[in-house]
Amino acid sequence: MTGLLNDIYRLLKEKKFFEVKNIVKTENPADLAVLFEELFDNNFDGQKEFMMLFRLLPKDSAAETFAYMNTDMRRHLIEMFTDKELREILDELYIDDTVDMIEELPANVVARILKNSTTGERKAINEILHYPKDSAGSIMTIEYVSLHKDMTVAEAFDKIRKVGVNKETIYTCYVTENRRLIGVVTVKDLFMAEDDSKISDIMETNLISVDTHVDKEIVANMFAKYDFLALPVVDKDMRLVGIVTFDDAMEVIEEENTEDVTKMAAISPNEESYFRTGIFKHARSRVMWLLIFMFSAFITQKLMTHYEDILVIIPTLVVLMPMITDTGGNCGSQSSTMIIRGLALDEIRFSDFFRLVFKEFRIAIMVSAVLAVVAGIVTYFFLTEYDILVSVVIVIAIICTVIMAKLIGSALPMLAKRIGLDPALMASSLITTIVDCCAIFLYFNIARFVFKI
Amino acid sequence: MTGLLNDIYRLLKEKKFFEVKNIVKTENPADLAVLFEELFDNNFDGQKEFMMLFRLLPKDSAAETFAYMNTDMRRHLIEMFTDKELREILDELYIDDTVDMIEELPANVVARILKNSTTGERKAINEILHYPKDSAGSIMTIEYVSLHKDMTVAEAFDKIRKVGVNKETIYTCYVTENRRLIGVVTVKDLFMAEDDSKISDIMETNLISVDTHVDKEIVANMFAKYDFLALPVVDKDMRLVGIVTFDDAMEVIEEENTEDVTKMAAISPNEESYFRTGIFKHARSRVMWLLIFMFSAFITQKLMTHYEDILVIIPTLVVLMPMITDTGGNCGSQSSTMIIRGLALDEIRFSDFFRLVFKEFRIAIMVSAVLAVVAGIVTYFFLTEYDILVSVVIVIAIICTVIMAKLIGSALPMLAKRIGLDPALMASSLITTIVDCCAIFLYFNIARFVFKI
Repeated sequence: MTGLLNDIYRLLKEKKFFEVKNIVKTENPADLAVLFEELFDNNFDGQKEFMMLFRLLPKDSAAETFAYMNTDMRRHLIEMFTDKELREILDELYIDDTVDMIEELPANVVARILKNSTTGERKAINEILHYPKDSAGSIMTIEYVSLHKDMTVAEAFDKIRKVGVNKETIYTCYVTENRRLIGVVTVKDLFMAEDDSKISDIMETNLISVDTHVDKEIVANMFAKYDFLALPVVDKDMRLVGIVTFDDAMEVIEEENTEDVTKMAAISPNEESYFRTGIFKHARSRVMWLLIFMFSAFITQKLMTHYEDILVIIPTLVVLMPMITDTGGNCGSQSSTMIIRGLALDEIRFSDFFRLVFKEFRIAIMVSAVLAVVAGIVTYFFLTEYDILVSVVIVIAIICTVIMAKLIGSALPMLAKRIGLDPALMASSLITTIVDCCAIFLYFNIARFVFKI
Repeated sequence: MTGLLNDIYRLLKEKKFFEVKNIVKTENPADLAVLFEELFDNNFDGQKEFMMLFRLLPKDSAAETFAYMNTDMRRHLIEMFTDKELREILDELYIDDTVDMIEELPANVVARILKNSTTGERKAINEILHYPKDSAGSIMTIEYVSLHKDMTVAEAFDKIRKVGVNKETIYTCYVTENRRLIGVVTVKDLFMAEDDSKISDIMETNLISVDTHVDKEIVANMFAKYDFLALPVVDKDMRLVGIVTFDDAMEVIEEENTEDVTKMAAISPNEESYFRTGIFKHARSRVMWLLIFMFSAFITQKLMTHYEDILVIIPTLVVLMPMITDTGGNCGSQSSTMIIRGLALDEIRFSDFFRLVFKEFRIAIMVSAVLAVVAGIVTYFFLTEYDILVSVVIVIAIICTVIMAKLIGSALPMLAKRIGLDPALMASSLITTIVDCCAIFLYFNIARFVFKI
């Protein structure tokens, strides 16, 4: 791509606009957006070329490329647009993309966008902005094809031809009556029917739809389950207010996955990509969790002072302690990760609580048996020079710690979900701290018992 | 759902088949598959009802429901099918679903499937099975609509009407010449064109396609980037051999995400869902990594014996050590998670190596400064009772460890990717061990230096 960028840059400098036009008109808008990003990041002298290149794009491709760009670039472009250019772009953009943009831009830029929108667009934008963040309503678009139940297939085709060009999808059409959703018909259904068939005879009436306030993650999961191209969004009276298309669902899935992964790695989530985020923001989103972990380490260190009596008698126990706490931490995060992922994919529900905890318990027994045997042997022969009592402490402590860690690691995310907290956050902070403290408590009390102190 | 299941079960027992038929015919196949799963899992006496219910489904819905079921249930059904029933289902299934199924079933069941397929189907199945696991070829389907460049739009519509019913998607059609892919045209393009327009005039000739051997993860990322409904798969001579549809891409994205998440949590990945996997298999996929971690703990313990001289003089250092190693481990896994996710989403490439490591270095300096100040203060006032030298050791050790951990955590996944290893595996095992060893080495050498031992 960078080779192409250099070619274009050179041609722009030499004012060979016709050749540039010929190159860019064959490129896919998603690739063009990447090209602009490189141009933007590389900070070629002045932003003149950036604007020049954008103006050389074919009109339809320009709007689509704009939709693929990141916030910084869009903002930059809007600031340089004439009012006429801005109106043209807004006209081509789907309403959901305009809303996405508005949510991220500063107030003065938003004002310019609203000033250059038609009354109808402004109304639609305001309606979508009105829905809670992360709801189905906030990611839907209002550009769908609606049909009437008394139309024939031929009439439906005519309508699609007439209104289709501005719709985000034409392949699923919605049959409404007094704005209520009463049926869905796909273009494939229309193709397979006779031209004079009535829509009411071929439409699907077992509707799967979502309420405007449903969380967008649930919407995305429905796409994964049903393989839909689009999903209708209805209000509480079953009135059709918009549709969500599969590309938005795919974006939600990627976003949620990134969010879960970063949360599990103890990083506050961030919507921008890695390189687009400044180092200060990166540092801030990481340091908070590291401090929490550090305080958790302080707590466990303080906890150990309660066991000074035994540490003085058997100092080896301190050296062996990290093995116990680390194993506990790893076991706990294994369980919590499995559960969090299962909850996200809707494979695990709260009603499975006891079944799940019991399953983890049985897994823990098997895992702990293997670990305890290995740890006991290694401790006896290699780490303590044949100290049977310390080895016994290690064996019992490993078994108890593994079982405890797996139970906590499986129960806490379920309970978090139940009371409306984010299970992924549990994995990183609370579980580690609790498991560590419990592990130390178990370890030293087992030692006291074995050594009869 | 369970209420519905009970109703159906009761009606089946009372032999009210007509009523059952009426209930199930309105259900979505994806929901029906869930219903069968519950029936299957709940082990109602005998599997008679299971088969009975399946035979009450409308024919088209039966095949689709079958496609949504898991391997166990499919196998169970196939074993009870008559040859005629099996042929009917195979006839309705898309080839890619049949191949998926064949890859998971035991040989005797596969033999029955192949026996009941037509020669054409068998040939197609064998061809797809021939592609490497996880390649574009292995997830593609051969059921697409192909058009000729000299057709008119009206002729294209006729062809779609005629062949469309058995195609996985009709919305993107492929224009071929001597089996070579020369253009793509969407049904939307056809709708927007005049009936007598030539396909060659309206088709898109800037083709985005994938080679049969491209990794399916890359294919899925292309869907996320370009918002395609389907992507053509070509051989090295640009001959069209199949298409991948968006629903398969979505499945790949979910699978890869689950795989990455489990690998990062040190669990060997497993394709079945949580409850469908037996406890023995769960235990096995976890215990291996726990053993590796444990050995890593043994190594660090052995490493500590090298520093017995200093431990005897300042025993507090042992107690404070977990804070250093834990912080190092957490910092390393934060960096590696960010990088692994970026690599998976194709936001980060190997060519960014130095830019990225330098960025992590600057982040590490900020993060370590904050952590060092906090750790120093807490150590001085609360953990050591005003021991300034130990506090100095902690401050320097934290700074060095955080920087070291972030550099290793960012560099290793990139290098792993470069030499063809899985970056997600690095995160869990190698990085922790290396970071731990380095942290201990740094910590005690800093202590030796500060205490002038």
